Amino acid sequence: MSRSIIAPADVPPDERSRYLANLDRVTEGSGRLMLMAGDQKVEHLNDDFVGTDVAEDDGDPEHLFRIAAQARIGVFATQLGLIARYAPDYPDIPYLVKLNAKTNLVPTASADPLSRQWHTVEQVVRLRETSGLNIAGVGYTIYPGSRHEAEMFTEAARLIFEAHQHGLLAVIWAYPRGQHVADEHDPHLIAGVTGIVASLGADFAKVNAPTGEPAVLREAVRAAGRTRVVCAGGGETTAEGFLRRLHAQIHEAGVAGSATGRNIHQRPLDEAVRFCNAISAIGFDDTGIDDALRIYRGS
Amino acid sequence: MSRSIIAPADVPPDERSRYLANLDRVTEGSGRLMLMAGDQKVEHLNDDFVGTDVAEDDGDPEHLFRIAAQARIGVFATQLGLIARYAPDYPDIPYLVKLNAKTNLVPTASADPLSRQWHTVEQVVRLRETSGLNIAGVGYTIYPGSRHEAEMFTEAARLIFEAHQHGLLAVIWAYPRGQHVADEHDPHLIAGVTGIVASLGADFAKVNAPTGEPAVLREAVRAAGRTRVVCAGGGETTAEGFLRRLHAQIHEAGVAGSATGRNIHQRPLDEAVRFCNAISAIGFDDTGIDDALRIYRGS
Amino acid sequence: MSRSIIAPADVPPDERSRYLANLDRVTEGSGRLMLMAGDQKVEHLNDDFVGTDVAEDDGDPEHLFRIAAQARIGVFATQLGLIARYAPDYPDIPYLVKLNAKTNLVPTASADPLSRQWHTVEQVVRLRETSGLNIAGVGYTIYPGSRHEAEMFTEAARLIFEAHQHGLLAVIWAYPRGQHVADEHDPHLIAGVTGIVASLGADFAKVNAPTGEPAVLREAVRAAGRTRVVCAGGGETTAEGFLRRLHAQIHEAGVAGSATGRNIHQRPLDEAVRFCNAISAIGFDDTGIDDALRIYRGS
Amino acid sequence: MSRSIIAPADVPPDERSRYLANLDRVTEGSGRLMLMAGDQKVEHLNDDFVGTDVAEDDGDPEHLFRIAAQARIGVFATQLGLIARYAPDYPDIPYLVKLNAKTNLVPTASADPLSRQWHTVEQVVRLRETSGLNIAGVGYTIYPGSRHEAEMFTEAARLIFEAHQHGLLAVIWAYPRGQHVADEHDPHLIAGVTGIVASLGADFAKVNAPTGEPAVLREAVRAAGRTRVVCAGGGETTAEGFLRRLHAQIHEAGVAGSATGRNIHQRPLDEAVRFCNAISAIGFDDTGIDDALRIYRGS
Amino acid sequence: MSRSIIAPADVPPDERSRYLANLDRVTEGSGRLMLMAGDQKVEHLNDDFVGTDVAEDDGDPEHLFRIAAQARIGVFATQLGLIARYAPDYPDIPYLVKLNAKTNLVPTASADPLSRQWHTVEQVVRLRETSGLNIAGVGYTIYPGSRHEAEMFTEAARLIFEAHQHGLLAVIWAYPRGQHVADEHDPHLIAGVTGIVASLGADFAKVNAPTGEPAVLREAVRAAGRTRVVCAGGGETTAEGFLRRLHAQIHEAGVAGSATGRNIHQRPLDEAVRFCNAISAIGFDDTGIDDALRIYRGS
Repeated sequence: MSRSIIAPADVPPDERSRYLANLDRVTEGSGRLMLMAGDQKVEHLNDDFVGTDVAEDDGDPEHLFRIAAQARIGVFATQLGLIARYAPDYPDIPYLVKLNAKTNLVPTASADPLSRQWHTVEQVVRLRETSGLNIAGVGYTIYPGSRHEAEMFTEAARLIFEAHQHGLLAVIWAYPRGQHVADEHDPHLIAGVTGIVASLGADFAKVNAPTGEPAVLREAVRAAGRTRVVCAGGGETTAEGFLRRLHAQIHEAGVAGSATGRNIHQRPLDEAVRFCNAISAIGFDDTGIDDALRIYRGS
Repeated sequence: MSRSIIAPADVPPDERSRYLANLDRVTEGSGRLMLMAGDQKVEHLNDDFVGTDVAEDDGDPEHLFRIAAQARIGVFATQLGLIARYAPDYPDIPYLVKLNAKTNLVPTASADPLSRQWHTVEQVVRLRETSGLNIAGVGYTIYPGSRHEAEMFTEAARLIFEAHQHGLLAVIWAYPRGQHVADEHDPHLIAGVTGIVASLGADFAKVNAPTGEPAVLREAVRAAGRTRVVCAGGGETTAEGFLRRLHAQIHEAGVAGSATGRNIHQRPLDEAVRFCNAISAIGFDDTGIDDALRIYRGS
Repeated sequence: MSRSIIAPADVPPDERSRYLANLDRVTEGSGRLMLMAGDQKVEHLNDDFVGTDVAEDDGDPEHLFRIAAQARIGVFATQLGLIARYAPDYPDIPYLVKLNAKTNLVPTASADPLSRQWHTVEQVVRLRETSGLNIAGVGYTIYPGSRHEAEMFTEAARLIFEAHQHGLLAVIWAYPRGQHVADEHDPHLIAGVTGIVASLGADFAKVNAPTGEPAVLREAVRAAGRTRVVCAGGGETTAEGFLRRLHAQIHEAGVAGSATGRNIHQRPLDEAVRFCNAISAIGFDDTGIDDALRIYRGS
Repeated sequence: MSRSIIAPADVPPDERSRYLANLDRVTEGSGRLMLMAGDQKVEHLNDDFVGTDVAEDDGDPEHLFRIAAQARIGVFATQLGLIARYAPDYPDIPYLVKLNAKTNLVPTASADPLSRQWHTVEQVVRLRETSGLNIAGVGYTIYPGSRHEAEMFTEAARLIFEAHQHGLLAVIWAYPRGQHVADEHDPHLIAGVTGIVASLGADFAKVNAPTGEPAVLREAVRAAGRTRVVCAGGGETTAEGFLRRLHAQIHEAGVAGSATGRNIHQRPLDEAVRFCNAISAIGFDDTGIDDALRIYRGS
Repeated sequence: MSRSIIAPADVPPDERSRYLANLDRVTEGSGRLMLMAGDQKVEHLNDDFVGTDVAEDDGDPEHLFRIAAQARIGVFATQLGLIARYAPDYPDIPYLVKLNAKTNLVPTASADPLSRQWHTVEQVVRLRETSGLNIAGVGYTIYPGSRHEAEMFTEAARLIFEAHQHGLLAVIWAYPRGQHVADEHDPHLIAGVTGIVASLGADFAKVNAPTGEPAVLREAVRAAGRTRVVCAGGGETTAEGFLRRLHAQIHEAGVAGSATGRNIHQRPLDEAVRFCNAISAIGFDDTGIDDALRIYRGS
């Protein structure tokens, strides 16, 4: 990565070393994020955690922590409640507190999405200070195009600022969605959305991969400027397909790492760990596809 | 119970002994909750307290306190107003302040449910400090699938955090409900809901028993992880049927105790006390059905 | 009255003597409230204050204060604005600040009722402290069954708590109302509503008299437990009928006094004073009907 | 005026002399208000300031300040923004900060009116303290009968209280309006509205003149009690007609002065000044119509 | 410019020199603003930054900062997030933090526009203090005529006041918009809108140029009084046409400078710089059209 790591101006001088250390930790100094997303228990209820294609391990939330502790990851993102409950036994994981979440029970066709901030940054900082946990940042989802976007934009802007004030990273999940959003995967629309995230001041924008070849992401990466773009893992069916797509996103479009959930935790522990390691190798070490597949296969 | 009792990370070090003492008290060290629910005066107005199948005693709210004082229970949950009024005469009861409540007058078909927080945790703590009452925790109801779920999720997340900050337990009543919830008793949906409660960080999730045999609860218990699951008493008609179901929930599905309201307080005082004692024996002592029935029958 | 006067637990020890003095004052030590309600200028605009059956005196708001100063009453309830304006000239009246009010211009059939808190308890306390006025309590109206009940329940719960924290009494006007409330005068529904008020922690619930004989109020009185129940004066046409009904409510149903507005202030000053005195004699002194009528008639 | 000037009880003792001085200033000791209203730039956009019947002067907002500085007025009411911009050049004018305003672009038939508080009283006080400007009071509009009346009643009640706490006067513009208000000029309804303003605690209620002879205002003046009533200038076409009506309102109905906007500022500066002087003479000095007309005509 | 530069009264004495320095900086002492607007990444998503008529440079947000750093401008307006990210490398640019923004995804025909405040002025001031950046002011958009105008008016009024309290300038983007706004470009309506901005207390109103010759702006300029009016750049296709229109706005209608976005940043860097310089020459130096065109053409 040629990009130097600098702190934005809303990180005050006495928090810069902490901020940079957090950024260094979640990117292993590469500038590329490897985020393991474990916030689906609200977003998708228990749908992602049981089923014919889902490892038995995944029914227990501790599976997420076991993976995050044993695998090479950048940061593990989940809700504060789970972190508070399990992190004392997994103190070495870097955590990112996902600050909002909603269920999928009310369909978008019936009501535009609204997801509100659960905890305040002040509460997150209090948790960090009294627990000594390794909390590296916060996350939040916005739905541009929702009739409720104004409420989420305000919460996002303020929490990013306050996170930076306390040396924490901020990652925004950004999904255009609402009754007036015709195509959530339109590359030009997604470029608009990464521009919003940059305007909000986040460090990373997590978007859904747009329709088309990885190269269509270039517009979004460019529009985001110094805010770095990562893609959600989505529904890729094979590990190899997933890793090839990630490699292409990074090397053909300048995507700055990955943010992967189901593709990791729906696998049994051992395989999930190896899959994380392969993802991290691609993002952190510029490992090629063949070597990454070897890591994944444990061969 | 093989589960060790540990405090979540949002309980600060200087509140851990209080939190653990509260948890120990409401579970009698068993890890299983015995919650006597007395919050129906708002939820069901006076419907639960008078009628042909309801003991005459139950028309007076003090009936609830008499049972809670004389019976073996874990904790008695009701609104702050009733606690403030009666607890000075019943100082030995451990109380759980139920922080929100709504009536059933507006049907779900007309408007998705919304139940807002009445008192703040700060007010509860002030009450605890100035009164010396034995307040062990707080409770709150969420309705995942309601168009208003965002408001309740935010209130729940923050009050659980603040409760833990002050050494209080947090129990979430979690009922999927709204115009887009097709089946409130679907076991998979209830597993989704216990996962939400775990993500919010509560100590216990109180859910309605799903349709089917007690074993269908295993998915919900597993999805909740270290957050423990208890079932609402529901409409079981006989004491024996109730106790058998509870025994099966605990031993076949890993349910961590019980949360019972009408099934207790609609009985005359003496019978209600014996019924509580039987429930507590099953949950706290691993008593079998026959012995529990003997306790209930006072024989 | 056999009920002893005790302070609820949310009255802190250093405010208990003030709270008990306030309760003693508004009940003259009887445990029964005599509340003169003068909050109709918002609820009914000027409809209650002019008309063929209304005394000329009543067009001037000072009429209310003249009555309250000259008659034997427990407490005079009206909005803070009127208290601030007239109380300096009527410093001996015990006041209850009615904290919310709405007009009747938007019909329930068009929108469920919402009445929001005007002043904070902190403002009321500031007024008490700087003015030296005899402010004994606060009042608030809830509309269970309204789509907006959640907002009013929260305001009510918090203001009752804060009132008690400062040694003030709390009276809740509780009227089931909304598009889904079929019969506002159903005795069982009113019993539900007094149970809500008890759960909120108020000292007194003011309800509309249900349909039927006074004895139907027994359910509501019982459901309220230690929260005492009084009835709004309603539309009784003759003074004798009014006093007979009140006597029956108290002695046949255990109603704890009265809350009367139009029936008092629509009379000329002298008659209004005598009418108050008769009401107070029934409530405070257990005076019989014949003696009460003599007091009213000034004979 | 026989009414003595007393401070309401929500003016604390150490602010009473300031409050009384403010009241004395805006009424010139007469107890009657002369308010020059200059808040129409939001309410009516630029409609009141240009046109065939409007003086060229009126297109520039400074016209308002020139009149207020040169004429005999009680107080000049406008938004804080204009005061902040011009008052340094017009430091001798007594100002009343109008705290809310809305446009007329959304018709009442489409949505019931809502006008929210712009600045807080705390901000007004900060402005007063740091600028040394002669800020005598605050103003606010309520729309009883609007579906949003609850929000405005709460803002009004609190800001009146806080204004009094800081020695400031409070004037409420009170207009019944909404889809369920059949006749905004019904005298009985307007009497209801002045009663609301009295209940809120304001010093003056500004209402639209009801339909009919000035004497119909007696009900409204009486209903307001110690809160004094003034009428908006409305659409009277001739200066003489305006002054005759005002004289009649005061002497036949007990109206306590005037609140005039367009009728003043749509005239050229010199005429506007003389018109103000005539209005003030009627209100402050009990000047008769003929003398007032001489003042207006400069003869 | 004959207008002297004075601080409004809501700038406290100890912040006046800072306020005046900021005003002097963004107008180069001319009293005329030259604002380079770079807030379109939210308002128009990526539509303004890529396309056949857009310079390749414009796809990267840093393009905006490069222009602002190299060109003669008054102030560069964009969201706090972008400022925080790039300003450390461009410390000499004077910044104006645009405090609200919305997307164009929900059409006005479906819902009246609402754009909420992202950051608080307190956060902006904290950023200024800890970063040492040259933050000269704040900006905010209002939509008079929207059903949500009340919410935006309140936010605008308070943030303008707080900005002035801290020596910051305030610019309001003011666009009449909503289902009841028939013609957003009606000159008389735009004059109404500049009057609103003056009432709110802003230093500058940014409006869309009304339909017709530049002289139609005279009404709006006059209605704004001491609040100065600038026009958005709009969709003028040629540089010469743009500059001629700007010159006419200033000299024929008294417009106080310019606020230009797309017309600047859609050009390649070098041309954009020269275009800014031409705009600034017209506004700051009273340069004529021919000389301005020479500056633009670099000849």
